[in-house]
Amino acid sequence: MTAPVNRIPVGVLGGTGMVGQHFIKFLRNHPWFDVTWVGASDRSAGKKYCEATHWRLEGLMPEKVRDIVVSESKPGDGAPHLIFSAMDASVATEIERAFAEAGHVVVSNSKNHRMDKDVPLLVPEINAAHLGILRVQQRNRGWKGQIATNPNCSTVVLTMALAPFKQFGIERVIVTTMQAISGAGYPGVASMDINANVVPYIGGEEEKMEQETQKILGEFAGDRIEPLHAAVSAHCNRVPVLDGHTITVSVETAQKPSFDQVIAAIGEYRGAPQERKLPSAPEHPLQYMEEENRPQPRRDVERDNGMAVYIGRLRKCPVLDYKFVALGHNTIRGAAGAAVLNAELMYSEGLLD
Amino acid sequence: MTAPVNRIPVGVLGGTGMVGQHFIKFLRNHPWFDVTWVGASDRSAGKKYCEATHWRLEGLMPEKVRDIVVSESKPGDGAPHLIFSAMDASVATEIERAFAEAGHVVVSNSKNHRMDKDVPLLVPEINAAHLGILRVQQRNRGWKGQIATNPNCSTVVLTMALAPFKQFGIERVIVTTMQAISGAGYPGVASMDINANVVPYIGGEEEKMEQETQKILGEFAGDRIEPLHAAVSAHCNRVPVLDGHTITVSVETAQKPSFDQVIAAIGEYRGAPQERKLPSAPEHPLQYMEEENRPQPRRDVERDNGMAVYIGRLRKCPVLDYKFVALGHNTIRGAAGAAVLNAELMYSEGLLD
Amino acid sequence: MTAPVNRIPVGVLGGTGMVGQHFIKFLRNHPWFDVTWVGASDRSAGKKYCEATHWRLEGLMPEKVRDIVVSESKPGDGAPHLIFSAMDASVATEIERAFAEAGHVVVSNSKNHRMDKDVPLLVPEINAAHLGILRVQQRNRGWKGQIATNPNCSTVVLTMALAPFKQFGIERVIVTTMQAISGAGYPGVASMDINANVVPYIGGEEEKMEQETQKILGEFAGDRIEPLHAAVSAHCNRVPVLDGHTITVSVETAQKPSFDQVIAAIGEYRGAPQERKLPSAPEHPLQYMEEENRPQPRRDVERDNGMAVYIGRLRKCPVLDYKFVALGHNTIRGAAGAAVLNAELMYSEGLLD
Amino acid sequence: MTAPVNRIPVGVLGGTGMVGQHFIKFLRNHPWFDVTWVGASDRSAGKKYCEATHWRLEGLMPEKVRDIVVSESKPGDGAPHLIFSAMDASVATEIERAFAEAGHVVVSNSKNHRMDKDVPLLVPEINAAHLGILRVQQRNRGWKGQIATNPNCSTVVLTMALAPFKQFGIERVIVTTMQAISGAGYPGVASMDINANVVPYIGGEEEKMEQETQKILGEFAGDRIEPLHAAVSAHCNRVPVLDGHTITVSVETAQKPSFDQVIAAIGEYRGAPQERKLPSAPEHPLQYMEEENRPQPRRDVERDNGMAVYIGRLRKCPVLDYKFVALGHNTIRGAAGAAVLNAELMYSEGLLD
Repeated sequence: MTAPVNRIPVGVLGGTGMVGQHFIKFLRNHPWFDVTWVGASDRSAGKKYCEATHWRLEGLMPEKVRDIVVSESKPGDGAPHLIFSAMDASVATEIERAFAEAGHVVVSNSKNHRMDKDVPLLVPEINAAHLGILRVQQRNRGWKGQIATNPNCSTVVLTMALAPFKQFGIERVIVTTMQAISGAGYPGVASMDINANVVPYIGGEEEKMEQETQKILGEFAGDRIEPLHAAVSAHCNRVPVLDGHTITVSVETAQKPSFDQVIAAIGEYRGAPQERKLPSAPEHPLQYMEEENRPQPRRDVERDNGMAVYIGRLRKCPVLDYKFVALGHNTIRGAAGAAVLNAELMYSEGLLD
Repeated sequence: MTAPVNRIPVGVLGGTGMVGQHFIKFLRNHPWFDVTWVGASDRSAGKKYCEATHWRLEGLMPEKVRDIVVSESKPGDGAPHLIFSAMDASVATEIERAFAEAGHVVVSNSKNHRMDKDVPLLVPEINAAHLGILRVQQRNRGWKGQIATNPNCSTVVLTMALAPFKQFGIERVIVTTMQAISGAGYPGVASMDINANVVPYIGGEEEKMEQETQKILGEFAGDRIEPLHAAVSAHCNRVPVLDGHTITVSVETAQKPSFDQVIAAIGEYRGAPQERKLPSAPEHPLQYMEEENRPQPRRDVERDNGMAVYIGRLRKCPVLDYKFVALGHNTIRGAAGAAVLNAELMYSEGLLD
Repeated sequence: MTAPVNRIPVGVLGGTGMVGQHFIKFLRNHPWFDVTWVGASDRSAGKKYCEATHWRLEGLMPEKVRDIVVSESKPGDGAPHLIFSAMDASVATEIERAFAEAGHVVVSNSKNHRMDKDVPLLVPEINAAHLGILRVQQRNRGWKGQIATNPNCSTVVLTMALAPFKQFGIERVIVTTMQAISGAGYPGVASMDINANVVPYIGGEEEKMEQETQKILGEFAGDRIEPLHAAVSAHCNRVPVLDGHTITVSVETAQKPSFDQVIAAIGEYRGAPQERKLPSAPEHPLQYMEEENRPQPRRDVERDNGMAVYIGRLRKCPVLDYKFVALGHNTIRGAAGAAVLNAELMYSEGLLD
Repeated sequence: MTAPVNRIPVGVLGGTGMVGQHFIKFLRNHPWFDVTWVGASDRSAGKKYCEATHWRLEGLMPEKVRDIVVSESKPGDGAPHLIFSAMDASVATEIERAFAEAGHVVVSNSKNHRMDKDVPLLVPEINAAHLGILRVQQRNRGWKGQIATNPNCSTVVLTMALAPFKQFGIERVIVTTMQAISGAGYPGVASMDINANVVPYIGGEEEKMEQETQKILGEFAGDRIEPLHAAVSAHCNRVPVLDGHTITVSVETAQKPSFDQVIAAIGEYRGAPQERKLPSAPEHPLQYMEEENRPQPRRDVERDNGMAVYIGRLRKCPVLDYKFVALGHNTIRGAAGAAVLNAELMYSEGLLD
């Protein structure tokens, strides 16, 4: 694999929304990809990005996107071959399909197609092989283009943290999340709901974590993805944290690895992004912290550009085998950064040609 | 049982500290008990309560305690028969013992004697029968007085929430806590540690929850308390909430009750405090909330004077049998209110005579 | 003045919204007023209150309003003579006018009519005499009914704190507010905007504080209200606090009272609500706190049922004469409680007959 | 001025504390200065930095300081010529003096010597000329070395924001601060004090702001610093924000500049650090934000490496002339970064030779 000679033009569907802004920010200095096109609602189409967008993120809007004229969210109008989708779930199904039909590679953060049997749900460190399903997708649907997806923000943290356990045969998992408010978009969670409070419910989140995890940790079997047959139970909560989903996990495996084996498996974990030195890949995708009270979202979430997952407090679980804490950046590793890493992986496999 | 004709004078050991202030506040209008004595460190002894105490709670210091002259923390000096102990764990062992030896009834919130084999660890709705161990305690130790304790703040919430499951044979429990900062005393948690953050560790808390729960849910067997043989696994976290510990629980039981049976068991749960109409007993000790996103600490914790436990989101657990959310007030039901209810229970059994 | 023999039926316009809920909660045990009618949008009309309302306040919806069938927001349909208005500003102008024309006494929290020349803007401790303008209002407008208003939430705190200075001739005032999120309704301030942040702008707030203050502290001159000719400058900020607006004030007066004169003027301040012992009147409307770091919103705002204003840290100002801190409850003293106290004042003057 | 050929070794007094950690972090990639020495309490002396220090800042301890062996806080033991002082005020007076006597250049963030008549209190953009007083200091005290200081964190923000007004003759200033918790060190503010609260008092802060501002904006008059004869009144508050002090300011000047003149004076403001392109100097030290609700601490404080001051909402003040909002990073521009910029300025004047 060699880096592209010229930067590859990319578009961002839903680029004026909160998730779209995270894409724009994450890509602002990307070595391979260059944002040249933004698609949004009809209301925004025709305006400059800086006029159509109320920038809500820390720091200022990147200079180079300010003058991009926003397009409608449909193929044509100069939309580049590679399209990142930050579309809202209420409209993503049809729009993403239209782009894929028209031959675009759609790398989507939306939930809409994640559980489709012929759509890969990627965490590149774990299941790069699932890209094989794209051939089935194109055949099934008669598309020139294709759709690849990344998981729900909480699921990314969980599956990354479970990845080193996979070799030991994961059988049962109970996870409780403490999720940041930035995961809910804008305006998202009302301050009257979350200030000095916990909201022990996030609509649809537990189902996503339970189902997506099985698919991600499953195997590509030539014409289908065989999900992992493990029981996963999720308790999802919103807490007054800005960025970073913290999770507590109890896990049971078929084999009974020693404590040292688990620690080694975490520390040595690498995947395709590390082997291929993809630009957004963290050098160490999983990092074990020895301090007794870490990881913590506010103190650790910005490390490694938000792309690594931090694990701490591994200890024996009196009910299942092991228990631990994990943390990942929900809007980076759990959304925009995840999609960009997916596209980098696809480039490395020649799928963007 | 009849209410006392005259209010019973009571003392508060460690009354100038944060936990002690919660006792003073909780008892300010108590129909049976009247705070007439406060014991504290030598540094405070001899001063008026209002001079010795930096009042940290919401609202103002109750008028009637302002002029109490603080005593040293030892028997004598007018200390009443009934002593509530809010002593710091670093000094509680010896001081509480000295009072019990001197014939006082010590009702303690400190952790020091909780796991002693001959000390009852009470949640009056659950294990009023454990008071029977006090006879063993007096015999073993040759005391005229006695020591009774209440559990750790998180354990109270967990055991109250598990109580309705006990009849079905509790076998395995996994619990994750999201605990309020008021549980850590004053100055307690530094704002630099918890503002917009989660701290996934509270020293000693998980061990307490795992062990105390087994003792509380165990049976009094004439000369000893036989702990419940259930596996309990706790993940304890601090979150930026003021009052109220929220917990997520997955539980497995030997019998497999239906959803409706569990809901009924929660709603109908009553114990000795309700039967005897103890003054601090909530009418409904467990309250199931139908809303999909409740209970919430900020919105629910002050209801029922902080003495009930709220349960919500009961649903099937893909790993164990059921999962749900529970909430209780950590400084009331989990500390001062718990001890006061213990004393009320003891009065109702004639143990304060 | 004698209390009403039977409780007076009252209606709440906009009763399903956040401000309306504060009215419902504040009135739940009122000795004089009984909520028998709720007006809301067409969408809610015909439903029971408990079905039409997503209750957002701490604690539960009061039992006695649950089954009230919500009416449309227009006169007739059993609307009682006395109507509290919690209408949104976007629709309040016409609706309140319609009720006043139809003969109702409208006691409004909305901003729409506050600065009308013939509408009293009341803080009962300060300007009960302004009720005299109602005769002008009825004459001008040919109404049988009438409209009385209370100030913006921040203005109430400021004017109450300035009231003891009025006798010394207030000339110049600079105020900075640190306002709670509950002042913005629901969903109000997005948590992404205010978590661990300050927003140094609240639309229209500074203008309201500057203008309303002059009207409130002005004099009723038989046929008009003569505003106070003092310069007022406001800086308004939102901070991550739940309830309670904290303000810092520097003030200059024509006379130069001594420090002790000012302290005495604060402590002795009383108005019509105290003289007439109105049910919602705090015994001491202004309370000076000696502690060097008080008042604080979280610790002081719930005292005196949220109806008093707390002042602290009075000291010489190197630029104007004195400076100090003040605090008041924005949704009680600054909204629902203010309106109810206005209605109690009007009852005491025979204006509800 | 040319950059140093080799990086200049520097020491950090009090380097294991919270302020010291900010110095270590700020200097981790500094092009001119290289931390080679850390002084701390006797308790830490002899240990490696990584063993002596409980790292509390976001991110990890910089690698290159981990193995520095901590020295006692006294001259000798390899202490380099240039010493940054992050000493606690309780011990700084004597220790800093000892280093200056021994010939070191002490660039201190401590308050102890700030108001000494012969010690410069520097904001390099404003009063680089005050360095002239160092000759007087050395003559007075018979020192080979010298002490230079930076202001209190709030004062830096205020004086930077007032700097463009100086040319118009500043006469009166009223400022209210909303200060971040990181300004109080560690453990600093208890979470029980500041969670969802405002504390309207910070010990000594108002006096510092009022006095330091006059000295900083004053003139060097050959043998003394003539303070600015302006009245300054400060109201200081702590709010639940992590980093960044937000202030509201009303200011009156002798001349009456137009709105456009003030905006231009802010936008064009430059000082010695910009002219000499000092490495830590922000290109634009003052930045005016046009958005109606900015600057905001959480969204703006990390821009420009925390070294610029942001101003917004300039408008006419009904009491003084103009009012506005300003924001600066308290632990960078208000502490560690301020001291480093001072040292860079001193290097540029040949004072470190």
